Amino acid sequence: MGIETYQIPCGKLPRGPHNLITDVEGVRVGHCTLHEGENHTGVTVILPSEEAKNRSRNVFVDKLVAAAYVHNGFGKTLGTVQIQELGILETPIALTNTLNVGLVHDALVGYTLEQCAADGVPCRSVNAVVGECNDSSLNDIAKRVVKEKHVRQAIAEARVDFEEGCVGAGTSTLCYGFKGGIGSASRVIELGGKSYTIGVLVQSNYGSTADFVVNGRPVGEEVLAMLKEGKMPQRQQEGHFVPAQVDKGSIMTVIATDLPVTSRQLERVARRAGAGLARTGSFIGHGSGEIMLAFSTANVIREEEPVVNVKSVREDWLDPAFRAVAEATNEAVLSSMLHAKTAYGLDGRVWYSLADFGLFEKENH
Amino acid sequence: MGIETYQIPCGKLPRGPHNLITDVEGVRVGHCTLHEGENHTGVTVILPSEEAKNRSRNVFVDKLVAAAYVHNGFGKTLGTVQIQELGILETPIALTNTLNVGLVHDALVGYTLEQCAADGVPCRSVNAVVGECNDSSLNDIAKRVVKEKHVRQAIAEARVDFEEGCVGAGTSTLCYGFKGGIGSASRVIELGGKSYTIGVLVQSNYGSTADFVVNGRPVGEEVLAMLKEGKMPQRQQEGHFVPAQVDKGSIMTVIATDLPVTSRQLERVARRAGAGLARTGSFIGHGSGEIMLAFSTANVIREEEPVVNVKSVREDWLDPAFRAVAEATNEAVLSSMLHAKTAYGLDGRVWYSLADFGLFEKENH
Amino acid sequence: MGIETYQIPCGKLPRGPHNLITDVEGVRVGHCTLHEGENHTGVTVILPSEEAKNRSRNVFVDKLVAAAYVHNGFGKTLGTVQIQELGILETPIALTNTLNVGLVHDALVGYTLEQCAADGVPCRSVNAVVGECNDSSLNDIAKRVVKEKHVRQAIAEARVDFEEGCVGAGTSTLCYGFKGGIGSASRVIELGGKSYTIGVLVQSNYGSTADFVVNGRPVGEEVLAMLKEGKMPQRQQEGHFVPAQVDKGSIMTVIATDLPVTSRQLERVARRAGAGLARTGSFIGHGSGEIMLAFSTANVIREEEPVVNVKSVREDWLDPAFRAVAEATNEAVLSSMLHAKTAYGLDGRVWYSLADFGLFEKENH
Amino acid sequence: MGIETYQIPCGKLPRGPHNLITDVEGVRVGHCTLHEGENHTGVTVILPSEEAKNRSRNVFVDKLVAAAYVHNGFGKTLGTVQIQELGILETPIALTNTLNVGLVHDALVGYTLEQCAADGVPCRSVNAVVGECNDSSLNDIAKRVVKEKHVRQAIAEARVDFEEGCVGAGTSTLCYGFKGGIGSASRVIELGGKSYTIGVLVQSNYGSTADFVVNGRPVGEEVLAMLKEGKMPQRQQEGHFVPAQVDKGSIMTVIATDLPVTSRQLERVARRAGAGLARTGSFIGHGSGEIMLAFSTANVIREEEPVVNVKSVREDWLDPAFRAVAEATNEAVLSSMLHAKTAYGLDGRVWYSLADFGLFEKENH
Repeated sequence: MGIETYQIPCGKLPRGPHNLITDVEGVRVGHCTLHEGENHTGVTVILPSEEAKNRSRNVFVDKLVAAAYVHNGFGKTLGTVQIQELGILETPIALTNTLNVGLVHDALVGYTLEQCAADGVPCRSVNAVVGECNDSSLNDIAKRVVKEKHVRQAIAEARVDFEEGCVGAGTSTLCYGFKGGIGSASRVIELGGKSYTIGVLVQSNYGSTADFVVNGRPVGEEVLAMLKEGKMPQRQQEGHFVPAQVDKGSIMTVIATDLPVTSRQLERVARRAGAGLARTGSFIGHGSGEIMLAFSTANVIREEEPVVNVKSVREDWLDPAFRAVAEATNEAVLSSMLHAKTAYGLDGRVWYSLADFGLFEKENH
Repeated sequence: MGIETYQIPCGKLPRGPHNLITDVEGVRVGHCTLHEGENHTGVTVILPSEEAKNRSRNVFVDKLVAAAYVHNGFGKTLGTVQIQELGILETPIALTNTLNVGLVHDALVGYTLEQCAADGVPCRSVNAVVGECNDSSLNDIAKRVVKEKHVRQAIAEARVDFEEGCVGAGTSTLCYGFKGGIGSASRVIELGGKSYTIGVLVQSNYGSTADFVVNGRPVGEEVLAMLKEGKMPQRQQEGHFVPAQVDKGSIMTVIATDLPVTSRQLERVARRAGAGLARTGSFIGHGSGEIMLAFSTANVIREEEPVVNVKSVREDWLDPAFRAVAEATNEAVLSSMLHAKTAYGLDGRVWYSLADFGLFEKENH
Repeated sequence: MGIETYQIPCGKLPRGPHNLITDVEGVRVGHCTLHEGENHTGVTVILPSEEAKNRSRNVFVDKLVAAAYVHNGFGKTLGTVQIQELGILETPIALTNTLNVGLVHDALVGYTLEQCAADGVPCRSVNAVVGECNDSSLNDIAKRVVKEKHVRQAIAEARVDFEEGCVGAGTSTLCYGFKGGIGSASRVIELGGKSYTIGVLVQSNYGSTADFVVNGRPVGEEVLAMLKEGKMPQRQQEGHFVPAQVDKGSIMTVIATDLPVTSRQLERVARRAGAGLARTGSFIGHGSGEIMLAFSTANVIREEEPVVNVKSVREDWLDPAFRAVAEATNEAVLSSMLHAKTAYGLDGRVWYSLADFGLFEKENH
Repeated sequence: MGIETYQIPCGKLPRGPHNLITDVEGVRVGHCTLHEGENHTGVTVILPSEEAKNRSRNVFVDKLVAAAYVHNGFGKTLGTVQIQELGILETPIALTNTLNVGLVHDALVGYTLEQCAADGVPCRSVNAVVGECNDSSLNDIAKRVVKEKHVRQAIAEARVDFEEGCVGAGTSTLCYGFKGGIGSASRVIELGGKSYTIGVLVQSNYGSTADFVVNGRPVGEEVLAMLKEGKMPQRQQEGHFVPAQVDKGSIMTVIATDLPVTSRQLERVARRAGAGLARTGSFIGHGSGEIMLAFSTANVIREEEPVVNVKSVREDWLDPAFRAVAEATNEAVLSSMLHAKTAYGLDGRVWYSLADFGLFEKENH
């Protein structure tokens, strides 16, 4: 039921084989989804070094070049300070709900300590990286129900062909008044006769309905017209649709690539995710924290040699990567919405899946 | 021949009376356009304090709250360091071609010294602000023909109803493979029962043809299809159209507002201009320096009182301003292109005006 | 046993009545110190709004203008992203050991939710602020023994006349090869006939012995000479003194003031703490994350009114505040060391208190 | 008459052979000093690639890794935006007086265009880098007398054993109430069995007299005591000494090294120059713009190969470089003051050379 099944082009570059962030070799994604009473939330973990040939599974040992770009800092993402100073990633990246970031941070620290103990590597300092969106419309967020075991479970379930939509950290997120969630996409670029992959994963939770645009088409306004004309999907009977009026809630964007870049270059790549969000209609609302986290698997930082050679693509060849991240971010948001299932609030509200409206033609396969 | 004559909606907010940056009270814009041999270039000056009631015409005396946001720093804009530290503007803002920034900077310094001498104000330090785009496809840029007298002339000709298109700093700029130039637009927002204005002026000089989008419509691809089908405007006979392949050249965005904001808030406003550029199809190419300069006329900084009251809109009310700057930036780019006249290079190339293609319906007036 | 009892001038400005960060009206500090097996660590909480006249005790309700400055980002401080975007503080600031930041973050979230529930204030998003130093030379840091109850206890014990030295987050920190800890100092400045206070609190945990300087005197080298000459304090018999060779471990600096400033100005103030650290001999080593967190109590941000007046000192009057923060930071580091008690490691090493050496004359009282 | 002739240790690392920034292979410095009527000013140019083995003399062709760090942005330095985005230097660095930056920028552009024309290299965009201090106490700054020919002259006279003190951009600068000027120093560090050099050049123009410290000794206060006691140098009869009360005027710091670093690492190195300034007594006054510009000659960026290997020292080995830049910056400031000659203002004030006071022991040679 992926975005590939619809005729929705998002740009011009070819997709990777799974059209997921895991198309970058070695990257895996796992979810843990919680439904407990009034709690509907979860955690999603991006593992940068599972089953990779050129490096340890323990990213604390074989650190990766990384960047963090803060497009709108109204958010609680943890771990950006050290990434911005040293340009490296040394833990998996976890996404969860806003108030759970502390516990998930602690869980990542515990996981990393354990990995290092198993590998016989001394570890007394860990920069865990945790992003978040506020899912409190559908989740009793004050309870912080995501615990260490759930983070471990997400890690244990990490895979290439992970699920999108209402899973893990996307369980209760909303997007443009519809149901949001986890979405992912990838692009393949050619540079100097070689192929490189740019993968994006988003936790979508922002936007006002009237602003929503799909490949230039004003889908948000179309739905508002349907609402006015009483032509909403039948499930409308089961709940009350209220368009989102304010752009708030945040969106996390995680970018992976095998392109050889320095952290300065990678920050430039991460910055272009904003263009992808703008293509969905966003003007970067005040209340929507927009944080981009990026890592490259092409340079492993082991800190053994006094002087290392950092492979770095020449600067003007970054353009395909910039285009790729804009396209993949745009598509990842749409994918998160098309994979999401309609959800009902306790207050009688309904958040439709974008897929419920029959708005998009299917591809002929 | 403004964008208002076409049926091209750019967002939802109402335009100001002139749909120009000068809709912000006191702001004036002047151009000096040069055509000398192989030099076709110029300078555009944004005067923040002409004919304003609440402050001196000399912005060095009554400084304004300001912000500079660097979206892509591949550019030569001068004066951002002090703006970012102190959050104030103390000279007019000048735009010109890339290699002329030094001379134009010196001219602004000279102008400010003269203004201060006339006002009896001591002045031994001036932070002149100069932005630029590279117009070397149509201008022999190495000659740096913009001199102090041209800056003075631009200042002298400053007015509310200034020209757009191939004038001043926009004389030889290009945009998405078409002719670019100076463009402007404005939006009016309501907050707490009061009206505020956001005005934007761009010097457009970026983009690859295939990426160009107008309100979601893939106009760049339409033109490429016309080219393939031999349906280009007649002027094609007079020159050879070559689509722009690479997004480079830069775009300057100047934002004026009468909204009461701190410099931190204004930087947030300036940052949203990027969403406006993305709406035209940009993914922020490597070679396109994108700098946003913003000032607010609502707080005059006189540095007399030990403690001043800085009027500041509450943070969540910035959303209308964010939306306004995204819309006005989008529209200012289109306006620059629709006002521009077709230009011919010495090498036989033609850069069409977007208006030549008959692509857009006219409004019925 | 405070630094006031010694003849160690640190600059020229007068101290506040307690020479503590709590000289800023309404600010209180509490510690919880843990000694459990091989764990010797703790948490220190800076409460910005206890017993203040002009604002609620709940800083989530009456937020304060704030700034975060990253002098060296090799650290795990949490909560800086939102402070840098919005310029406000909405929770107490907690300091702890490096690996405990996640749990302490969660505890601050829980505390804030509870406060808001008690005050009948809706709260679904909290930006908790947690700083850290690495105390793993004396603390089995992997255990993360600081739990929510300890954070609550520290809050409960907050007072004006709090302890310095080996307490709370300073229990096991080291400084220039000596025992470090929590230290604090304050300065009073006069502007326009009014008095304002600048208070600083540090968690000191950095520096190599040979670099240590007190008011220009090379105390570190004096101690190294004493070591060479076998003239160390008697306790040397109880353990083995090993000079610190590398500047690592981090230093947190928290700055409070009642000076009316914008967040931009406050960031400038925070930046000057680095000059205070340099006065102790620091060259900002790679491994010493140096983060400055600052808040002002002079502007309460309630977000009720559409346009608020932010009181802001004129820019050139910031100089006394800059001097104050440099002096107070210098003195706070020395105070942390002079209050600290000699500590012994399990490996037979000793970290002396700086007070053990009899290096400084006492004031005559 | 260099600082080496005095017994003034500035740290622990060994000096390079000339104790100048030109100890970094290939770097040359040239001055042009102007004395015309009431104008006493000049320009100093740092040429990064004269007579270097591994790269072209034309830095536009063989660009160097670079960084710009803004410690206090109250200044008019030009060219930082692109350095911060792309991490490269492509012109010499020029220093001059505050109001002359525009003309000197234009001169550097002209010089670069000429170099490129001679080398047959296309050049349509140049990021010239110009720093400044305000020398208006001794120079009629409004006249902007530094012209293109003076910049050319400074370039033509570039050498290894350049002069320090009241020359070039340091002709009329002041420091801590004494005469300032151009100063330079260098340090040699060992890493992995190889030697690397860190060179620093400053244009000193900041500080209040009472704050001035030399290696921990309160020299500023000693001079104030001499003034009180009528024990000033005889030249006092020729003019009136007025202690500097406010820290303003700015200091430019240029750092060169042959250490292999990325631009991110180099920015970290540049940041440590602030510790060197603090060692002279500075608290980074509001009015003293403090900008650090740094370049490394170890990586030449030619942009021919799609993927290049950037040599990068391992991160924890940066510590010696951090220490070196702090020490060399401290010493460069003192050197600028000790080389400077006493100067007299038209208003009857005298700015002594620090060397006039006989305060420092000479080395025995």
